[in-house]
Amino acid sequence: MDHSDMPQRDWQLSERARKLTSSAIREILKVTERPEVISFAGGLPAPATFPAERIREATNRVLREAPAAALQYSATEGFLPLREWVAARVSTSNATIRPSQVLITTGSQQALDLLGKVLIDPASPILVETPTYLGALQAFSLYEPHCVQVPTDDHGLVPQSLTPMLTQGARLLYAQPNFQNPTGRRLPLERRVALAEFARASKFPVIEDDPYGALDYAGSPLPTMLSMAPDHIVYCGTFSKVLAPGLRLGYIVAPEDLHFKLVQAKQATDLHTPTLTQRIVHEVVKDGYLDEQIPAVRALYRDQCEAMLAALARHMPDGVSWNRPEGGMFIWVTLPAGIDTMALLEHAVAANVAFVPGAPFFAGDPQHHTLRLSFVTVPPARIDEGVARLAALIRERI
Amino acid sequence: MDHSDMPQRDWQLSERARKLTSSAIREILKVTERPEVISFAGGLPAPATFPAERIREATNRVLREAPAAALQYSATEGFLPLREWVAARVSTSNATIRPSQVLITTGSQQALDLLGKVLIDPASPILVETPTYLGALQAFSLYEPHCVQVPTDDHGLVPQSLTPMLTQGARLLYAQPNFQNPTGRRLPLERRVALAEFARASKFPVIEDDPYGALDYAGSPLPTMLSMAPDHIVYCGTFSKVLAPGLRLGYIVAPEDLHFKLVQAKQATDLHTPTLTQRIVHEVVKDGYLDEQIPAVRALYRDQCEAMLAALARHMPDGVSWNRPEGGMFIWVTLPAGIDTMALLEHAVAANVAFVPGAPFFAGDPQHHTLRLSFVTVPPARIDEGVARLAALIRERI
Repeated sequence: MDHSDMPQRDWQLSERARKLTSSAIREILKVTERPEVISFAGGLPAPATFPAERIREATNRVLREAPAAALQYSATEGFLPLREWVAARVSTSNATIRPSQVLITTGSQQALDLLGKVLIDPASPILVETPTYLGALQAFSLYEPHCVQVPTDDHGLVPQSLTPMLTQGARLLYAQPNFQNPTGRRLPLERRVALAEFARASKFPVIEDDPYGALDYAGSPLPTMLSMAPDHIVYCGTFSKVLAPGLRLGYIVAPEDLHFKLVQAKQATDLHTPTLTQRIVHEVVKDGYLDEQIPAVRALYRDQCEAMLAALARHMPDGVSWNRPEGGMFIWVTLPAGIDTMALLEHAVAANVAFVPGAPFFAGDPQHHTLRLSFVTVPPARIDEGVARLAALIRERI
Repeated sequence: MDHSDMPQRDWQLSERARKLTSSAIREILKVTERPEVISFAGGLPAPATFPAERIREATNRVLREAPAAALQYSATEGFLPLREWVAARVSTSNATIRPSQVLITTGSQQALDLLGKVLIDPASPILVETPTYLGALQAFSLYEPHCVQVPTDDHGLVPQSLTPMLTQGARLLYAQPNFQNPTGRRLPLERRVALAEFARASKFPVIEDDPYGALDYAGSPLPTMLSMAPDHIVYCGTFSKVLAPGLRLGYIVAPEDLHFKLVQAKQATDLHTPTLTQRIVHEVVKDGYLDEQIPAVRALYRDQCEAMLAALARHMPDGVSWNRPEGGMFIWVTLPAGIDTMALLEHAVAANVAFVPGAPFFAGDPQHHTLRLSFVTVPPARIDEGVARLAALIRERI
């Protein structure tokens, strides 16, 4: 049937649905599926890091040893041994996290959806970094908040800017302290201490979203804010970057009273995360496998990051600047003011190279001359060629 | 750490979160995990029907043949070959369903959450059956609708009752035409025709939620309303009852313009359903396996239903009535008016037998003297004993 035959219905949609727009990332990913495009757009982890054989073996054990339990409905909170593993993993000598604080989610995107459900009313203020993770803006947007941008500098969020005037009435503060998406910035220790102190004094939770914490190239992680204020921080983690994103497995660590509300919301939303994938991941990680896996992922991404930094230094004209990430998956590039990276993208895709324009990562007042580069999907050999193509287009515009 | 040490924070929750309550079903399921309890409460499919070995073999093939794709991020809409399979499965000689109408969801509970997100504003009226599926009431409740009960009789929803006064301003009509949860009722053909006609004339979608359609004991399914009005019905399906619920795999079939909004909402909610489970299920079903599997599940549940009907006839006192389901997983029992089944449940659990009281299935004006029995989890040998215990408690109260 031809789509033009479709009756065009005037469905009465909800306010939130009418405001929904597709993300720039999503539209770009469609274009960049063509193999000739060198795409620095997607944040797709390198498939070479997926432990497919280990996952296959784990699945065989799970389905041989506990087939009925692995395929049955299960508790909304998640598989208890996996919750215990998470609690032990995020605990430190200063802060013991209890399994009763852990909720397993369908990827950490769902963690953001559940937090929005439980904390945000229409028009309630929420605090976000400048810029912030686009996926968080999308998740929270369904609950129609008023986003307030917290000032940042090259080291990330500036705690002194959290004045009573700025934070009044806020329902949450959302931050990615480790190798933030999109900027790659890591929040320094003294700012973590200040932000944890802020969380302790606040009437609303500080959300520490930490998908990239394990990916610090030097293997010298800074302490989490969760470890500094375990009863006041909501911590979100994921297996997407250290195992495989297609498993859609993440978790929220929250104070018990908030945890309880998140569990109720998750029950209404999807009952529980798939039992099978939870048991597979527990089987893979329970004996310390991540201690082998994570250093290998770090080393690969460090090399790819170095390759991209070298290419940027080699090809980019004067007036273009970027940061040197100490971990994670992204480099943030600032062009001379006046170059709109959304317009640049169209020419870039025509030249078979892609990136994500910076504007959609801002809750307001976008910096149109910024862009995000991911170095984890493209092999090092093609990174130089892709950066060269992009630099040529930028040079034309300076 | 003792929980009494926990600081009790006065979190500023959203309106919807403050209204959230745990479901009666959930609290009961906790109690009935004790092995001595004969539980007719849970709607847990019989584990004997889970094709664990076939799922294990399928997983091995998927992870050997396409490891990188099976573990990577994937499209929000779902795995295309699975969407094609679903489209073919629900198509009929009258109505061709396109893969572009199919969205794969994390269980059909998520389908209900996404429909609520996209269609319901606070206080907007939605139409539900009397009684209706508790999980749908929970999913929709997060979007704070005004629930309007549509009158029913022993054959289900009464289409003539859908007057302009009752349906004015509604955003959706939600119905389970096949072996409804909780009543086990099947909507007759002429009412399906009338309801499909109503959908064609309405400004809002009729949601045909069909988890149990494959479980008709005679193997003579009635046509879906989707097949009668494919551009006006939203159809929800699931693999939970015919394969395994722990996979959390369901789907929504919707007109393309509504499908597009559901995809946007899903992207913000959890990006996509796990790639691995989608590919496993496609590998299991693609060569017609359900044509072997479904008759076996039907035969088992038919036998267990017969066992429960025989036990009810044997043990229940006069004044207790129930229906004879032609399929599905549930029997609906009506006690003499004045017996409150919520109070009865406490005594029942003390006597090691459990059920779900009828009241939570009503959006308003509950019939407190009703209850739901599931016959699929308890083996036939224990069904008679459980019904005898329950009948003794009821006899004491008449």
